[in-house]
Amino acid sequence: MESRRVEAFSDGVFAIAIALLVLDLRLPPANGHTLTFLLLHDWPQYFAYVVSFLTIGIMWMNHHTILAHVMRVDRALLVLNLLLLMGVVAVPFPTALVADNLIHRGGTTAAVTYGLVMIAISCGFAAVWLYVVT
Amino acid sequence: MESRRVEAFSDGVFAIAIALLVLDLRLPPANGHTLTFLLLHDWPQYFAYVVSFLTIGIMWMNHHTILAHVMRVDRALLVLNLLLLMGVVAVPFPTALVADNLIHRGGTTAAVTYGLVMIAISCGFAAVWLYVVT
Amino acid sequence: MESRRVEAFSDGVFAIAIALLVLDLRLPPANGHTLTFLLLHDWPQYFAYVVSFLTIGIMWMNHHTILAHVMRVDRALLVLNLLLLMGVVAVPFPTALVADNLIHRGGTTAAVTYGLVMIAISCGFAAVWLYVVT
Amino acid sequence: MESRRVEAFSDGVFAIAIALLVLDLRLPPANGHTLTFLLLHDWPQYFAYVVSFLTIGIMWMNHHTILAHVMRVDRALLVLNLLLLMGVVAVPFPTALVADNLIHRGGTTAAVTYGLVMIAISCGFAAVWLYVVT
Repeated sequence: MESRRVEAFSDGVFAIAIALLVLDLRLPPANGHTLTFLLLHDWPQYFAYVVSFLTIGIMWMNHHTILAHVMRVDRALLVLNLLLLMGVVAVPFPTALVADNLIHRGGTTAAVTYGLVMIAISCGFAAVWLYVVT
Repeated sequence: MESRRVEAFSDGVFAIAIALLVLDLRLPPANGHTLTFLLLHDWPQYFAYVVSFLTIGIMWMNHHTILAHVMRVDRALLVLNLLLLMGVVAVPFPTALVADNLIHRGGTTAAVTYGLVMIAISCGFAAVWLYVVT
Repeated sequence: MESRRVEAFSDGVFAIAIALLVLDLRLPPANGHTLTFLLLHDWPQYFAYVVSFLTIGIMWMNHHTILAHVMRVDRALLVLNLLLLMGVVAVPFPTALVADNLIHRGGTTAAVTYGLVMIAISCGFAAVWLYVVT
Repeated sequence: MESRRVEAFSDGVFAIAIALLVLDLRLPPANGHTLTFLLLHDWPQYFAYVVSFLTIGIMWMNHHTILAHVMRVDRALLVLNLLLLMGVVAVPFPTALVADNLIHRGGTTAAVTYGLVMIAISCGFAAVWLYVVT
């Protein structure tokens, strides 16, 4: 399998993971408040959207920089790349956690979960990178 | 990184953003009304679907027209393109707002939010275009 | 813009529209029934899934057969293609209607809506085809 | 139609099916529990996410290995491939079943459903493979 193929699949997965972030932009039930109040009150979800969007976008750039060094793809690299993508696709989940809990009691737990997912992705990047350069 | 790569990723993001609009087509709870009544009563969401679909589609055409002028892609263009895509992906959110509130009290707020997102996307297009031509 | 570009974007939109059908596969609340009962009782949604999946798949094949006749793409073809895709992306909505109402009172309305969307898509195909051959 | 085309469409469908798995990662309503408790208590959904992600990823690899043997694509292969993709796209549904019911009463039914979908996909792979080699 050529490197072009893995790039196309990874591009698709990155594109979908980044676009699914919009599904976390959602208004809470009105409860008698005006729409303007609801939109302004819900700032943590815009914050989480922007941060996660830029994070996945930068990951996509790095992913391409790494894959540009690859000549021929073998099974081991495919599996490592798959584990990396498993982390990237999961990003919308902790993003929603942070968006829902940032200004409430569970904020710390949400932030820690977000950090853990980022660490897992970093390990995935390190594994792919180490495999490519050796 | 070649221009072909950025186009493929951007194409993917546009395609998903445009397809996610269908998730906003949803029936409200019946409350004893017939299905026909519900379908006809819910015209604002079809209106919002058509407007946003055509808007994103036209943006996609313009995006390609711009990128056709690009020979070689650098990091700055990638970041500008990412900011532009961040606006495009967000379109289903104000679309849902307009669909839900057009004929209710929050209609003005929803329309203003929709307009603000469009202005943000226009700024993104302007930034990419200015960077490409200079 | 070359024909290759429109095909890539259309392929993406078709792929997402066909994959979003799975989001309509959803169990109703249990209400004391066993999971086995719920799974078997919910046969209309599997039926709707299979029919819509095959329908979109066959549309994808036809779309490629048509585009294979196109040498050079202009703006008018892009707009016609966009209108066609607007119909294809909407398919999961009437599919969900049929799945939810097939064995209930609103079955006829749901089937008519499904048929209307199919007719709209057929008109889109006819328009693209007529434009390509002339 | 060339083999490249079918690969691009299949890649897109695989990428979306694998990315939609993240939509099943969702917290239950709090009910007075802390966020940490909810996150730890919900381990079956992480388990289901990892298993299904790796399963679809391995299917993607196998799919490419098979298609690498194909020179020219005809209608029959397209239809067989479509039936195979219909199974792959459905994977998030039994995954959600397993995630929701693994430690409850319906666990056996959920596992059997998951197995049935996997068997259907295996039949699809077998059909495509037999058609390709003959």
